[in-house]
Amino acid sequence: MSAARQFVLTLSCPDRAGIVAAVSNHLADQGGNIVEAQQFGDQETGRFFMRLVFENASRELADLDADFAPFARQLRMQWTLRDRSRRRRVLLLVSKFDHCLADILYRWRLGELPMDIVGVVANHPRETFRHLDFDAIPFHHLPVDAATKATQESALWSLIEQTNTDLVVLARYMQVLSNELSTRLAGRCINIHHSFLPGFKGARPYHQAHRRGVKLIGATAHFVTADLDEGPIIEQDIERVTHADTPDDLIRIGRDIERRVLARTLRLFLDDRVLLNGNKTVVFHS
Amino acid sequence: MSAARQFVLTLSCPDRAGIVAAVSNHLADQGGNIVEAQQFGDQETGRFFMRLVFENASRELADLDADFAPFARQLRMQWTLRDRSRRRRVLLLVSKFDHCLADILYRWRLGELPMDIVGVVANHPRETFRHLDFDAIPFHHLPVDAATKATQESALWSLIEQTNTDLVVLARYMQVLSNELSTRLAGRCINIHHSFLPGFKGARPYHQAHRRGVKLIGATAHFVTADLDEGPIIEQDIERVTHADTPDDLIRIGRDIERRVLARTLRLFLDDRVLLNGNKTVVFHS
Amino acid sequence: MSAARQFVLTLSCPDRAGIVAAVSNHLADQGGNIVEAQQFGDQETGRFFMRLVFENASRELADLDADFAPFARQLRMQWTLRDRSRRRRVLLLVSKFDHCLADILYRWRLGELPMDIVGVVANHPRETFRHLDFDAIPFHHLPVDAATKATQESALWSLIEQTNTDLVVLARYMQVLSNELSTRLAGRCINIHHSFLPGFKGARPYHQAHRRGVKLIGATAHFVTADLDEGPIIEQDIERVTHADTPDDLIRIGRDIERRVLARTLRLFLDDRVLLNGNKTVVFHS
Amino acid sequence: MSAARQFVLTLSCPDRAGIVAAVSNHLADQGGNIVEAQQFGDQETGRFFMRLVFENASRELADLDADFAPFARQLRMQWTLRDRSRRRRVLLLVSKFDHCLADILYRWRLGELPMDIVGVVANHPRETFRHLDFDAIPFHHLPVDAATKATQESALWSLIEQTNTDLVVLARYMQVLSNELSTRLAGRCINIHHSFLPGFKGARPYHQAHRRGVKLIGATAHFVTADLDEGPIIEQDIERVTHADTPDDLIRIGRDIERRVLARTLRLFLDDRVLLNGNKTVVFHS
Repeated sequence: MSAARQFVLTLSCPDRAGIVAAVSNHLADQGGNIVEAQQFGDQETGRFFMRLVFENASRELADLDADFAPFARQLRMQWTLRDRSRRRRVLLLVSKFDHCLADILYRWRLGELPMDIVGVVANHPRETFRHLDFDAIPFHHLPVDAATKATQESALWSLIEQTNTDLVVLARYMQVLSNELSTRLAGRCINIHHSFLPGFKGARPYHQAHRRGVKLIGATAHFVTADLDEGPIIEQDIERVTHADTPDDLIRIGRDIERRVLARTLRLFLDDRVLLNGNKTVVFHS
Repeated sequence: MSAARQFVLTLSCPDRAGIVAAVSNHLADQGGNIVEAQQFGDQETGRFFMRLVFENASRELADLDADFAPFARQLRMQWTLRDRSRRRRVLLLVSKFDHCLADILYRWRLGELPMDIVGVVANHPRETFRHLDFDAIPFHHLPVDAATKATQESALWSLIEQTNTDLVVLARYMQVLSNELSTRLAGRCINIHHSFLPGFKGARPYHQAHRRGVKLIGATAHFVTADLDEGPIIEQDIERVTHADTPDDLIRIGRDIERRVLARTLRLFLDDRVLLNGNKTVVFHS
Repeated sequence: MSAARQFVLTLSCPDRAGIVAAVSNHLADQGGNIVEAQQFGDQETGRFFMRLVFENASRELADLDADFAPFARQLRMQWTLRDRSRRRRVLLLVSKFDHCLADILYRWRLGELPMDIVGVVANHPRETFRHLDFDAIPFHHLPVDAATKATQESALWSLIEQTNTDLVVLARYMQVLSNELSTRLAGRCINIHHSFLPGFKGARPYHQAHRRGVKLIGATAHFVTADLDEGPIIEQDIERVTHADTPDDLIRIGRDIERRVLARTLRLFLDDRVLLNGNKTVVFHS
Repeated sequence: MSAARQFVLTLSCPDRAGIVAAVSNHLADQGGNIVEAQQFGDQETGRFFMRLVFENASRELADLDADFAPFARQLRMQWTLRDRSRRRRVLLLVSKFDHCLADILYRWRLGELPMDIVGVVANHPRETFRHLDFDAIPFHHLPVDAATKATQESALWSLIEQTNTDLVVLARYMQVLSNELSTRLAGRCINIHHSFLPGFKGARPYHQAHRRGVKLIGATAHFVTADLDEGPIIEQDIERVTHADTPDDLIRIGRDIERRVLARTLRLFLDDRVLLNGNKTVVFHS
C-alpha cells in the first residue's frame, strides 16, 4: 500500500506451535507490517520454512537484524533478512555457448532481473562474445585446463571475494567446479543443466536422448554441490520433440528451455523465494 | 505435525497494517497453531485476502466461530471458518454430455474430491447415464423448457435447500440459470465453459474456433453470475490443435480440457482456496 | 471427399530414390486415391518410413494385399495394410489400480477409441472393479504369483489367441511379463510407465521423485520388450509439482498423466500412426 | 541421404483423385527424389494442400520451374518452388519495444533462422536500440505520424522493393499498416499480436486481461491483412498467470510468449511450412 521500505525475511527452523504468531508479533513490535507471507511445514523432516515481506518505515536493516538475532536463536532458526531494494551482486560464468548469458543480459537491461552484475568470467576470450554488449560490466578471461585448474579457481575465488559476490551463476559454464569451491559456494551457486534431471547424465545428453527416442527433453536449474548434477533442484521445464528432430534440433530446442529455466530461477532467487531444505528446495512462487 | 483437528479460515477486509499479526494472535490466544497461511493484498482495490489452516485441539467450531465474529467485525472482514474434516455438500447438474460428470464421480470415488454428493440433477432421464454407477447418490430428473423454466428452477431451489447444498456444479448443464437463481447462488455455483474465455461466445464455440483457424482451444471454470459466461474466472487451460483437426476433433479435445479444468477447480474450492475479489478471484494454490 | 472405403498402409524399407513415386503409382494403378501421406527418412539408419491413407472403391483388402506383396518384396519393405473400418481387437490387462482402465472404457464408449475390447484380464477379482460397467466385455480373473506365473501366462496366451487379439494394453498391470511372452507380443503390447522415463526406475518411483525434490513428474507409454521399461517410447507427458506435494499428491497427479498418455497412445496406435524403428518409434501425428 | 541440391515445393489446388501420384511422377520424371512430403485435404472447402522437399542433382531451379508451370496449370494449382539453400530476404519493422527484435537477431546469428536480414526499419531512432549489435544490417529510421503516414509508407514500400524483400516481420511495430500496404504485402507480412486472439482487442490488452482476472495470457502470430488483428493465425501460445500478477508482470510474461511465438512462426515460414487457406492457415510441422 505505502511506499515504505520493504524487507524480505526468510527462515527455517524446527516446526512447533506458534511460530507464525511469534514471528508476526516480533515484526509488529518493531513497527513492521507484513505484506507477503508464505510458509511450508515439511511433514517428513519436521522442519518449518517461511518467507515474509514486510514494510517498516522507521527502522534500519542493521537494527532489525540486531533485534531479530536473539529471537531467531531461541527458535533455532536459519534466517536471512534483506532490504528488498538492495540488489544482489551476481557473477556470471560462461564457456563458449552464450545463449543463457545473452538472455540474462537482455533481461537484466530490461529490468526483469533486479541485480548488479559484478562481472562476467569466461574460459574463452572476449572475442567469443563480440556480439554482446557488456556495457560497463568487467569481463575476465580465466582460461583453464587440468594443469591450471587450481590456480584458475583460486583467481576465481579472489574475484568472488573482491566483488562481494552474492550469487555465482553457471550460465553454461562447461567446467566442473572442484569440491572445495562447490562447498564454499554452497547455496549461492546455481547451474543450468542441459537435459532433464534425473535422466541422461554424462556427456552429450541430447545425443543420448535422441538415441533413446524420447518425446520430451528438458532442463534443470539446481544449486551446485560437490556431487555433480545432483544438487537441490530449483526449477525444471520441458518441450516436446519428435522422431524427426535431429540431435542438432534437440540442442536448439534445448537452448530455449535452458535459458527460460535459468531466467526463472534467477528471478526466484533474487526475490528470496528459494530456500534450501536438505537436498531439496522449498520454492515460494508468487 | 500432530493429528489435531484442523480448521480453515478465509477472510478478506480493507488492507491496513498489522492484520497478519492480529489474526495470528487471535488464533494463538484460542490455542490454535497455524499450519498453512497464504495472503494477498490487492494494490488496486486496497483489499486484503487471507487463507489460514490451523490446528486447535481444545476448541469446537462453534466456539471458535463465536470468538472470531466480534474480532472480524472490528476489521470489517468477510470470512468463513470451516472444520476441515467437514465435507462440503455438492449438487451436480448435468445435461446430455456426461464427460465432466463421469470424471467427477470417478475422482470422488478415488478420494480425490473430498465432498458429499447430495444429488445429481439432469434435464435428461436416468437412462442417459445408464453406464454410470451413481451408488446411493439420488438422481433427479428435472426436465425443462421455456414454459416450465420457472417451475423447474423452483423445484431445483427446493432441492438445494432440502439437501443443505453448499456448492452447485454445472457439469455441462446446458441451461442458463435465471438471474434470480444465479444471484441466490452467488459464490457457490461453478460452471465449466467450453472454449477459452474471453473468446468465442454464443452457440457452437468449437465450430467458431475451427472457422477462425485457431491453434489453441481452451476451457474456463468460473463462478456463475447473472451475466452469462462473465462470472469471476477460477481456472483455465488449453490444448494445441492444428488445421487437420475437425470440429469433432475440437469437441473431443475440448472434453479433456473441460473435465480437467473442472476437476482442478473443484479441488481448489473444496479446500477453500478460491476467494472472491469483486469480478475476479484470488486463488491460493498449494 | 467421397465415402469410398479407406485403407491404411504403413511401410518401412531401406531408403532410396523414388519410393514415394513408386508407392503412389502402385496405389494409383489399383484405382486408389491417396488422402493422407506422411513419411520420414532416418538419416542415421538409412531407413524410410511411410504411412498412407487411400481410398479405393473397387477393390477388396485381400486383392490389394495380394497385389502389394510382390511390390513390397522388391523394395524389401516391412508393411501393414488395413481396412480402416476394421476395428482392432484389444485386450486390456489391469491390476488393482483402475484409473487407466476406467478412462479407456469411458473413451471407448464415447467413440474416442475405435476398437473392439475383446476382454479385460485382471490378477484381481471382478469385485475390485465393481463400479465399472463392463457391458458385454468378458472379464477374466487370472491371479498370479511366482509359483503360478508360467501357468497364468499360458492361460493369458491362449486367451490372446482365442480372441484374435491385435493389441494387448497393460493398463497399470503390475506384473512383469516373461521374456517369452514379451517377445511373442513384440510390437503389439503397450505399457504405461508411471514416472518419466528415463528417470526413476524400480519400485515406488513417485516416492523416489519426491525424495529427489523434482519440480516435474511424468509418464511414458512404450512398447513392451524383454528389457523391462526400456521398450520403444511412444508418448510422454509431465505435470509441474511443488515442494508442498506429498508422495500421495504425486501419485494422484501421476494418475492424470498416466491416463491421458495411455489414451493418446492408444488413439495413435489404433490409427496406425506408430511405426517401430529399432529401439525407437516413428509417430506420425495428424 | 545424399548432398544433392534440395528444393521445396508447396501447392494448393482443388482436391481430386490422383494428385499425389501425379505430382510424385512429375518430380520423378525430372530426376527428383522426394525426401519430405506432407499433405492436407480440407473437407470443407474441397481444397488440397501439399508441401514436398525433393532432391534433384541434375536440374536448375529455372528448369524445374518451367517444367512445373504447365503441369500446375492443368491442376489449377497455386504453387511455390524454392531452392532450399536460397535464403529468404527479410525486413524487420520495430517500434520502441525491442524484445522480439533482439530475440530474432540472436537466433539469426546462431543460425536458428536461415534468412538474410535486409534491413531494420524503426519509427524510433537508432539510439533506441543502442545495446543491439546490428552488424552490417542497414538501419532505417522512418518516423511516422498521422500527417506523414502516406509518405512514410511509400518510403517503406520503396525500401521493400529495392531490397527484394520476401517477408516483412512486424516485430512489435506499433503502427497499423494502411489497407493498401497490407493488401500489397498479403501472405508475406507477419505480425505478432500481444494477447490471445480472439480475445482482448484494442489498447492495453494486458491491462484488459488483468481486469478480467484471467488465469492464462497468450500471443498470436498471424498474417497481416487489411482487417487489423484478424489475419490468418499461424501460431499461438500461452502462459499461466495468477491473481498476484500485476499488469507489469503480465507485460513481462507476455514478452516471453511474444518472442517465442514469433520465432517459431519465422522458422515455420522460412521452411515453407505455412500455406494460406482462405482466412486460415495450413501449417505443416516437422
